[in-house]
Amino acid sequence: MTDEVAGGVRAGDYRSLAKAISLVERADPSAEKLLAELYPSTGKARIVGITGSPGAGKSTLVAALAKFYRRQDKRLGIVAVDPTSPFSGGAILGDRIRMAELYTDRGVFIRSMATRGFMGGLAKATNDVVDLLDAAGFDIVLVETVGVGQDEIEVIRTVQTNVVVLVPGMGDDIQAIKAGIMEIGDVFVVNKADRPGADKTVTEVTMMMGLVEEHGDWMPPIVKTVASRGEGIAELDDAIRKHFEYLSTSGELDRRNRERVRIRINTLLKEKFMGRLIGETLTEADYEKLLEDVLRKRSNPHDAAEDVLRRVNF
Amino acid sequence: MTDEVAGGVRAGDYRSLAKAISLVERADPSAEKLLAELYPSTGKARIVGITGSPGAGKSTLVAALAKFYRRQDKRLGIVAVDPTSPFSGGAILGDRIRMAELYTDRGVFIRSMATRGFMGGLAKATNDVVDLLDAAGFDIVLVETVGVGQDEIEVIRTVQTNVVVLVPGMGDDIQAIKAGIMEIGDVFVVNKADRPGADKTVTEVTMMMGLVEEHGDWMPPIVKTVASRGEGIAELDDAIRKHFEYLSTSGELDRRNRERVRIRINTLLKEKFMGRLIGETLTEADYEKLLEDVLRKRSNPHDAAEDVLRRVNF
Repeated sequence: MTDEVAGGVRAGDYRSLAKAISLVERADPSAEKLLAELYPSTGKARIVGITGSPGAGKSTLVAALAKFYRRQDKRLGIVAVDPTSPFSGGAILGDRIRMAELYTDRGVFIRSMATRGFMGGLAKATNDVVDLLDAAGFDIVLVETVGVGQDEIEVIRTVQTNVVVLVPGMGDDIQAIKAGIMEIGDVFVVNKADRPGADKTVTEVTMMMGLVEEHGDWMPPIVKTVASRGEGIAELDDAIRKHFEYLSTSGELDRRNRERVRIRINTLLKEKFMGRLIGETLTEADYEKLLEDVLRKRSNPHDAAEDVLRRVNF
Repeated sequence: MTDEVAGGVRAGDYRSLAKAISLVERADPSAEKLLAELYPSTGKARIVGITGSPGAGKSTLVAALAKFYRRQDKRLGIVAVDPTSPFSGGAILGDRIRMAELYTDRGVFIRSMATRGFMGGLAKATNDVVDLLDAAGFDIVLVETVGVGQDEIEVIRTVQTNVVVLVPGMGDDIQAIKAGIMEIGDVFVVNKADRPGADKTVTEVTMMMGLVEEHGDWMPPIVKTVASRGEGIAELDDAIRKHFEYLSTSGELDRRNRERVRIRINTLLKEKFMGRLIGETLTEADYEKLLEDVLRKRSNPHDAAEDVLRRVNF
């Protein structure tokens, strides 16, 4: 069965792709085999993260970028990790109408990861879906995230270029930058740049950038856009392409790919270990007994974990 | 050494507590032993989550609650998981001045978890810190989170009562609710209730609540507050206390405590397993070789993980 689905995905068949994604999302036993089969076909797509607070206009920017790429006949996937994104269905009507064009375009595949409780975590599921889109031959995959929470940070760490979207006059955004988003931006966008205070925001970001030492040889550019009117999108594309050139020539792309693989292997190791531990090596009853002992303060979480590991000679 | 620190924590000594937290945060080898030693002293504190978007006024609400509890001579801990919180240092001056009173109060212990990259994850570190505060005899621990991202959701799942903070006219908040926050609110607060639209927000939340089926016998109350003036705080305290009564009498408290313990044991199992696997059972060189094979497409993440597990007879 997976052979057939894998073949369909490789051929870019949408129904196979939807099926593959659904297998991955519900952690079907066949999903890992499918991902393994498709793995050699990955590595060609450009993976771009679009990160920013709700209200920054991320989805409008994603839509504008999508239209830009479609005019160049590129096929693209959109993966919305942000539950407040219009792409996640949490949209007001105006947004949804604006996106309608993309939903009917056969060169665009949109998937929301807003449902909670993925087996193995949101970051793993998102990475798997990106891999499937990559294997299906999409040229570009845009991953939309809020950028808050370690799981989202993990998603961001595995994209190739991360675009951080800000808007003029959002004090909170600047706070979030201070708190760590600054380090994860490869390109900065000041969206809604027709609003008062756009230049002030550009200046603030520039100043903060001076405080960050992790850039290496890449100084993140700041692009002003008015995504709702498509303004600045060509400049943004230019910045993204320049960043990819930097990645390729500096060896940074290799480093990021390695990190991506490391995260994936480790996640699988933990997941498989736990899956085989509880229910196979350890019976459910044994496990519940352990829980009970900790709850009744006859033991503690640390000793309970050590006890389990001893039983499996680890 | 841990004996001495543990004794200090149990006696409520601030220096010991700060030392214990720092051991936990940097995953010092002695941290687990310390937590195990202190575990029997936990279980007395009331653990309350305060969740909401940046700008909803969470920190002001936390400060108002803190002052309210201090007037009743209760000792309380504040754990800020939100990196944009004033408690995380990402504050504008006005906020920090408003909080100054709390920082100099010996009955209040404030800790920010804003630094990224905790070993074993943010949720684990946060739970550990809450346990330490519990063991140190704090009556109430307030955990401030944005509520976005699986790690934060995991933090929220382990508190006893979760307060979701909204403000009038924030469409995004309502979107976020639709996307899942609704299920995690035990008490709802419409803060900044002196603003236009407060009643409309109350109506919207009430309507959405009708759509959620997970409440059991508890119907989450909606409290209007103006945290900056301390208005509605007594009513909020009342709602939190009523929820705790419900938890205790319905058996739900047991269920939540069990879930908390389950999460802790599983996290420890994964962490210890990975720690012993890479560097002990498997050499760094072996592991790098595996990574390299996957990167070069000679293998794939799934087969690499299976290979490792086979080597350790798992």
